Amino acid sequence: MAEKSKILVIGGTGYIGKFIVEASAKAGHPTFVLVREATLSNPAKSNTVDTFKTLGVNFLHGDLYDHESLVKAIKQVDVVISTVGHAQLVDQDKIIAAIKEAGNVKRFFPSEFGNDVDRVHAVEPAKTVFATKAKIRRAVEAQGIPYTYVSSNFFAGYFLPSLSKPAAPPRDEVIISGDGNAKAVFNKEDDIGTFTIKAVDDPRTLNKILYIRPPLNTYSFNDLVSLWEKKIGRTLERSYVSEEQLLKNIQEAAFPLNVVLSIGHSVFVKGDHTNFEIEPSFGVEASELYPDVKYTTVEEYLDQFV
Amino acid sequence: MAEKSKILVIGGTGYIGKFIVEASAKAGHPTFVLVREATLSNPAKSNTVDTFKTLGVNFLHGDLYDHESLVKAIKQVDVVISTVGHAQLVDQDKIIAAIKEAGNVKRFFPSEFGNDVDRVHAVEPAKTVFATKAKIRRAVEAQGIPYTYVSSNFFAGYFLPSLSKPAAPPRDEVIISGDGNAKAVFNKEDDIGTFTIKAVDDPRTLNKILYIRPPLNTYSFNDLVSLWEKKIGRTLERSYVSEEQLLKNIQEAAFPLNVVLSIGHSVFVKGDHTNFEIEPSFGVEASELYPDVKYTTVEEYLDQFV
Repeated sequence: MAEKSKILVIGGTGYIGKFIVEASAKAGHPTFVLVREATLSNPAKSNTVDTFKTLGVNFLHGDLYDHESLVKAIKQVDVVISTVGHAQLVDQDKIIAAIKEAGNVKRFFPSEFGNDVDRVHAVEPAKTVFATKAKIRRAVEAQGIPYTYVSSNFFAGYFLPSLSKPAAPPRDEVIISGDGNAKAVFNKEDDIGTFTIKAVDDPRTLNKILYIRPPLNTYSFNDLVSLWEKKIGRTLERSYVSEEQLLKNIQEAAFPLNVVLSIGHSVFVKGDHTNFEIEPSFGVEASELYPDVKYTTVEEYLDQFV
Repeated sequence: MAEKSKILVIGGTGYIGKFIVEASAKAGHPTFVLVREATLSNPAKSNTVDTFKTLGVNFLHGDLYDHESLVKAIKQVDVVISTVGHAQLVDQDKIIAAIKEAGNVKRFFPSEFGNDVDRVHAVEPAKTVFATKAKIRRAVEAQGIPYTYVSSNFFAGYFLPSLSKPAAPPRDEVIISGDGNAKAVFNKEDDIGTFTIKAVDDPRTLNKILYIRPPLNTYSFNDLVSLWEKKIGRTLERSYVSEEQLLKNIQEAAFPLNVVLSIGHSVFVKGDHTNFEIEPSFGVEASELYPDVKYTTVEEYLDQFV
């Protein structure tokens, strides 16, 4: 076995970043997280920082907006995974510049972890969010940086506890966008971390999109509701919102509700998680590539809420 | 009376833009809206477009990202009001460039309509959203463009129907961030439109922040709940979330819930709507400046939900 690549995670204390860092450390990769000094003493980050310390994660002081610190951090590793949040997506050009200058990076994973942004049919404002990620893809390719894009679709922990509404899953009624037949994909955050880290040293994922689209995690909204009904032993009243009405609702909603609604439109009405085939020329599917990974299925995930 | 300024609204079919356009047309200003051709045939925009036509609003074809169309539109008016959405905030540098080239603009209102972004105590990700608006302020000032910044605090239509939660106002229990004593301001969207348009030709608002902070619309969360309890004749169970817990919740939330929570932190815990005095050197208060405007109070607004 070749030695495992050293991995730097930028945005590692964020929502999905934490799972990537943990998966990396647990898989035996020397794992580094770029942090500002203030992060280490931020009480809101203390649980995360403690977990990282327990796992032997290395903290490198630096900042996305401090080019020298970025180059210095990148020079210490082989692979860079960005998990920066929404507001910093556009500033990943700074990571690209630092990777070019450092010259040693074998693989770059820009911050993705959602829809395949080259294959979406979104309206504003989701359209702009997706376009920002696509623009970063083009910049990575233009610079000839070896990459993998992880299209992990929905975070199970964000959508399943409530069937895409806040709080607990519904027990009386449920509102469904469109006809409820478009298929979406719900992956547990830990599994997204595991699959992402599996891809790091895998030549099959080089310059490819890694889709996390396990058949067992792929459900239409109607089927998801049916599964939930079976689990709780009762029938929910289903109300359907037409696409036309949903588009009006998006127009009438203020930020950030309009973002939530327009992402829902892309996924639950247009079916952007699953309305295309994964062609070998551009992509690979994670559960096929790594059949040994025992991921959590939607069916198992929902059990905790019954 | 001097002739009323011609007003161009960029982002005029958006959430707050619609109210600004309507207020402008109703106040007798020749009113122009920059629209893409596709907007006029978009069924989701049809209600808005029809209303504008009824009010005699002029549609100018153009796009934020088409410099020539922007300059051409701006040359036809005296005042530019930007109400572009979150995703386009940063691209208002294109409006600034076009205003400089056009050379005829008497007043520019960048897209604000929220907190005074120079006087906030926000954590991420709200911090970055506010910083983007502040950066645009600095660019306007650096270019010597005459401006008014409208700090209209919360949109009543977004927060009051639910006391800041989705759906209808609560009747059993309510969750309150912090100790519930920080004072926030809730203004009806129509009134924000009216006050903004009042400011257009007013020398007292030149190069100033126009705060819409009427005393009758200023409530602590505790007092807002008490007012609601009085209206419905019952007592709600109040649960308090400490700032420490809220900061952890923000860290653990994904986009865009983290944006919602962090704006709530700024307003309901830090009190950023009201925790500073409006000094004549930088600001004026709208309900003082225009005592003739019969705005909707929070008390009146809540009546519709009783």
